[in-house]
Amino acid sequence: MSDVLLHNSYGKSAVRLTKVVRKGPAHELFEIDADIQLEGDFDAAYRDGDNRGVVATDTIKNTVYVLAKEQAFDSVEAFALILARHFLKTYDHVTAVAVELKQASFQRIIVDGRPHDHAFTSAGPQMRYTRAFKSRTGEELKGGVRDLVVLKTTASEWRDFHTDRYRTLKDTRDRIMATKVDATWTYNTPSADFPAAAKSIDNAVLTTFATQHSLGVQQTLLGMGEAALAACNVIDSITFELPNLHRIPFNLDPFGLKFENDIFVATDEPYGLIKGTISRERK
Amino acid sequence: MSDVLLHNSYGKSAVRLTKVVRKGPAHELFEIDADIQLEGDFDAAYRDGDNRGVVATDTIKNTVYVLAKEQAFDSVEAFALILARHFLKTYDHVTAVAVELKQASFQRIIVDGRPHDHAFTSAGPQMRYTRAFKSRTGEELKGGVRDLVVLKTTASEWRDFHTDRYRTLKDTRDRIMATKVDATWTYNTPSADFPAAAKSIDNAVLTTFATQHSLGVQQTLLGMGEAALAACNVIDSITFELPNLHRIPFNLDPFGLKFENDIFVATDEPYGLIKGTISRERK
Amino acid sequence: MSDVLLHNSYGKSAVRLTKVVRKGPAHELFEIDADIQLEGDFDAAYRDGDNRGVVATDTIKNTVYVLAKEQAFDSVEAFALILARHFLKTYDHVTAVAVELKQASFQRIIVDGRPHDHAFTSAGPQMRYTRAFKSRTGEELKGGVRDLVVLKTTASEWRDFHTDRYRTLKDTRDRIMATKVDATWTYNTPSADFPAAAKSIDNAVLTTFATQHSLGVQQTLLGMGEAALAACNVIDSITFELPNLHRIPFNLDPFGLKFENDIFVATDEPYGLIKGTISRERK
Amino acid sequence: MSDVLLHNSYGKSAVRLTKVVRKGPAHELFEIDADIQLEGDFDAAYRDGDNRGVVATDTIKNTVYVLAKEQAFDSVEAFALILARHFLKTYDHVTAVAVELKQASFQRIIVDGRPHDHAFTSAGPQMRYTRAFKSRTGEELKGGVRDLVVLKTTASEWRDFHTDRYRTLKDTRDRIMATKVDATWTYNTPSADFPAAAKSIDNAVLTTFATQHSLGVQQTLLGMGEAALAACNVIDSITFELPNLHRIPFNLDPFGLKFENDIFVATDEPYGLIKGTISRERK
Repeated sequence: MSDVLLHNSYGKSAVRLTKVVRKGPAHELFEIDADIQLEGDFDAAYRDGDNRGVVATDTIKNTVYVLAKEQAFDSVEAFALILARHFLKTYDHVTAVAVELKQASFQRIIVDGRPHDHAFTSAGPQMRYTRAFKSRTGEELKGGVRDLVVLKTTASEWRDFHTDRYRTLKDTRDRIMATKVDATWTYNTPSADFPAAAKSIDNAVLTTFATQHSLGVQQTLLGMGEAALAACNVIDSITFELPNLHRIPFNLDPFGLKFENDIFVATDEPYGLIKGTISRERK
Repeated sequence: MSDVLLHNSYGKSAVRLTKVVRKGPAHELFEIDADIQLEGDFDAAYRDGDNRGVVATDTIKNTVYVLAKEQAFDSVEAFALILARHFLKTYDHVTAVAVELKQASFQRIIVDGRPHDHAFTSAGPQMRYTRAFKSRTGEELKGGVRDLVVLKTTASEWRDFHTDRYRTLKDTRDRIMATKVDATWTYNTPSADFPAAAKSIDNAVLTTFATQHSLGVQQTLLGMGEAALAACNVIDSITFELPNLHRIPFNLDPFGLKFENDIFVATDEPYGLIKGTISRERK
Repeated sequence: MSDVLLHNSYGKSAVRLTKVVRKGPAHELFEIDADIQLEGDFDAAYRDGDNRGVVATDTIKNTVYVLAKEQAFDSVEAFALILARHFLKTYDHVTAVAVELKQASFQRIIVDGRPHDHAFTSAGPQMRYTRAFKSRTGEELKGGVRDLVVLKTTASEWRDFHTDRYRTLKDTRDRIMATKVDATWTYNTPSADFPAAAKSIDNAVLTTFATQHSLGVQQTLLGMGEAALAACNVIDSITFELPNLHRIPFNLDPFGLKFENDIFVATDEPYGLIKGTISRERK
Repeated sequence: MSDVLLHNSYGKSAVRLTKVVRKGPAHELFEIDADIQLEGDFDAAYRDGDNRGVVATDTIKNTVYVLAKEQAFDSVEAFALILARHFLKTYDHVTAVAVELKQASFQRIIVDGRPHDHAFTSAGPQMRYTRAFKSRTGEELKGGVRDLVVLKTTASEWRDFHTDRYRTLKDTRDRIMATKVDATWTYNTPSADFPAAAKSIDNAVLTTFATQHSLGVQQTLLGMGEAALAACNVIDSITFELPNLHRIPFNLDPFGLKFENDIFVATDEPYGLIKGTISRERK
C-alpha cells in the first residue's frame, strides 16, 4: 500500500521589494516583504520529479517585482489582491493562492518644520499586514498591524484571579501593562480605502489602550476589538494576539527601600500570550 | 447589537526549564522551552474583567516547574502529555489545552575518548519538538524536529520546470540543495518509546536526503516522508516545511573564470518554502 | 614558566530596567538596557578561585536598580555617570569601570490630539546610547544614537570609483541611499543638558542626510559629522558606523520593462560598512 | 577652522561564500562569512565626493569570490591571509586591511555507519573564527572559536564572594555552570596546520571545562587558557569572553517541595560577562 500526499503547497518567502512612486516632487515609498504560497495539482513533482507544472519559486519572486512595476496601488491590501488574482488567473492548475505582505513604517524627515519630499526615517517597529487568499470558489482579504508596541504606566490592575496550589503571584491594583499588538481583521469588501481603514483601527486600538482602565489583558483585548469594529465599518471581525511584555516589580526590600510602582525588571521570557477574536456576529 | 467574542485562548510562552536527573553518576539533562495555551469559559474576564476563573499565566508557568519536579519522564512527548492532562483534569472550566515543547540538543563532552558524566556541549541547532493537544473529547500527540540543517553539494537537479514570461532561472543538472528541516509527525499511540521513534525518523530523513538523487525539493520531501513512515510504525503521518537555503552560482564570467559548481553566494532571502503532508491513508 | 593573566574584566550585561517617574499627572518613562564592566585587582579569583574581592555580577545588577531608585536623572548620560562613579567610589580595588546604556524610544500616545499622561508607544527602532568610562585617573563621557534608519529615494549618486579587474558595478547618478546610523560622540563636559544636545545632533544628522546631495556614503558621513559639531558645542568629536542598506535595481529587461529608479530588491547581506571619526582638532 | 577627519575605514560585511572543493569523490565544504575593512588615503571621497581611489565595497565582495575560486586553502586562517595580502598588494593607497572570517560547522551525514561523500548536516552553533590584519609594517593572524555552548550540571561552586549592601545572592556549593565560549588566540606563525591547532585548542577548552572543579567562571577561564597554551605551541596568547548562561534554581518552597539541584529557570538576560587574556609572557 502506498502513502498518500495529503496536502502540499509551496512558494517564495521573504521577497523584499522597495517601490518608489515618483509622481510630482514628493516621492511615495513602499518597503514590502512578501510571502506567497500556491496550492494545486503538483503531485507529479512530488511523485516523479516531473516539474513541468511547477512555477519555480524564483519565477514567483520575479512576478512580485514585475507586477509592482506594472500595477499602481496605494496599499498593501490592493497589491495583495493584484498578486493573488494574477496567480490564479495565470495558472490553470493552481487551485488556491495565499499572499501575505508586511510593510515597514516610514515617515518623512522633517526639515525646517516641513516633511521632506524624498528623505524618510523609520516610523517605528509596527508594520502594516495583509493577507489575500483566493481559491477557485472565493476570495478573502485581511488587514492588520504587527509589532505595535504599547505600554501604560498605571490604570492597569491584575487581581482576584484563580487561586490554587500553583499560584504564587500576588494581587496588584497598579501595574505596568505593555504589549506588542498583533491585530488581524477581515474586510467585508475588496475595494475600500484601506489606508484610511487601517488608520482608524490603529487609532481605536491606541485610544482604548490608553484610556480604558484595565482589569486584565483579556478585558483590554475585547475593548480594543469593540472599538475597532465601531470605528471601521469595512471590517467584520478582528483577532488579537497580545504577548504580555512583563515589567516585574524589583524587590527593594533587601535594600531598605520601598517599591512605589517605579522600579521594574523588564523581561521577554516567559511571557503571557492572550488571544481573542471579536466579530459583529456569530459565525 | 453587541459584538461576539468568537474565540479566545491564553497561556504562557517561552517558559524555559532546565531539569537535571541525578540518578547514578551520569546526569541526564533536559533543556526545554514550553508554550501552553488554554481554552475554556473565560468570557467573564473579557467582558467584565472578572478574573475569578482565570488561571494566571504566572500560575501556568509555575505548574511547568512543579510538574517537572514531581513527575519522571524520558521524553518531551511524555512531559507534554503530563502537562496537557494536568490542566484539563485540574480545571473544570478549561475545555482544551495545547502544550508545545521544544528541546535543545546537547551531547556529552568527550574526555579521553569517553562521554563525560556531567559536562555537555551543544549538539546542533536542531531541536526536538512535540505538541500535545487535549480536549474533553480527545487527545492528539505530535512529535517533530526543528531546524535540522542539511546540505548536499551534488546529486540535486532543478530543470524542466514551467516556462512563461516571468521565468528567468535556467535549468541546472547539478546544484547545491540545502534546507532546514521542520518535520512534525502524528503519533498513533500515547505510550511509545518516543526517543527511539524520533531517532529512527531523523535517521530516515537524513539518509534519504543524502542518498536519493533529487529532481527538486518537492520530490525529496515526499521521499523523506515515505522513508519516515516506513522506518517508524508509531506514526501515521508526517508534515514537512522545507525552506530552500539557496546557494546561488557566483557569476565568474566577468573575471574570465569558469563556474564549476564550486563558488556560490549563500543567501537567506528570499527563500523558497515547500510544504507537504504524507499519510499512510487518506483522511 | 607560568602564564600571565594579561588583562581581565567582568560585569553584568543586558540589565533591563524600567523606571517610571511619577511627579505630577504626566509620568516619565525610562526603558534602559545596561552593560557594566569592572576592571581591577581580581587576580586571586582567576588564579585560586578566591572570590572575596569579587563583586558578584548579581550584585552589580542589583546596584543598577537600587541607584535607579535612589537617584534622580533626566538622561541616560547622567545615569551612566552616577553608576560609573558609584562603582569606583565604593570598591577600592576596582581600577576602572565602563557603563554602557541604551534607551528605547517611546512617545506618548496621542488621544484627541493631546499627548497622554501615562500611555506610550514605540517611537522607532533608534535608541539613545551612552558610555561612561571612569578610571582612577580620569572620566570620559560619550553619547550617541543607535539604529536610526534613514532612506532617501533620490539625490544620491555612486560613480567614478576605482576600476580594475574585480569591479563589475556600474556608475549611477540616481540611486537609493539608506543606512542605519550608529553615531557616538564625545562630550567635553560632564554636566550638559544631554537630552537637548542629543536632539540637536540627531536633527543635524537627519537634516544633512535629507538635504545634502550625496556622491557617496563617505561624503555624507563627513557632512553629517560637520553638521553635528556645528550644531552642538558640548561635543568634541563624533564617530559614525554606517551600514549601507543596499536597494538594488531589479533587472526588468527580461520582461520588456524599463527600470526607472522605481523597483528595487532590498537586501541585508552583504552590506557596505563605512566608518569615520570627525573631530574639532587633531589629537 | 575646519574639522578633522581623524579616522576612517570602510569595507564589506556579511559576504557569504559557499565553496565546494571537488577533488575525488569526497567533497570538501566551506561555508564562510567575511567582513573586510580597508584603511588608507580616502580623504578625497569624504571631503569632495571624489571616489576615484575608492575600491567599491561591491568590488571588495567580488574579490572574495574570485580569490576563493583561484586560490586553494585548507582553513579560514589561510584564506584570511590570502585576502589581506591581496588587498594590500593590489592597492597602493591602502595602508591597512582587516579580514575577519567565520566558518559554520558542518559534519558529514552518517549513512550505514559511514560518513557520506557529499551530504552534510550542521555540527553545532560553534563557528571557526579568524582575523588577519595587515598593514605596511606588519601582519597579525588570529584564530578562534565562537558560540561554543557548554554546560555542566555539577562540580561548580559560587561562594565567599564580596558582601555588602547590594548583595542578595547566596553562596552555593553546587550550581549549573554554562557559557557560550568566545575564544580568540594569536598565532606566532603564518603557516601552521591551522585546523589541527584549532582542534587541539577546542579540545583543551572542552576537557578543562568538563574536568576542572570550578570555583567561579574567572577560575575556569584561566584554566582553559592555560590548557590551550599548553596544548598548542603555535599560539602565544588567548582571550576569552564568557557570558554566564545563568540557570537559576526554581523556588520550590511555596509548593512544599525541595530543591535538589534539579529544577532551574533558564535565562538569557541579564547575564554575567567574564573576560580575560592569558599570555605566555607579559607584553
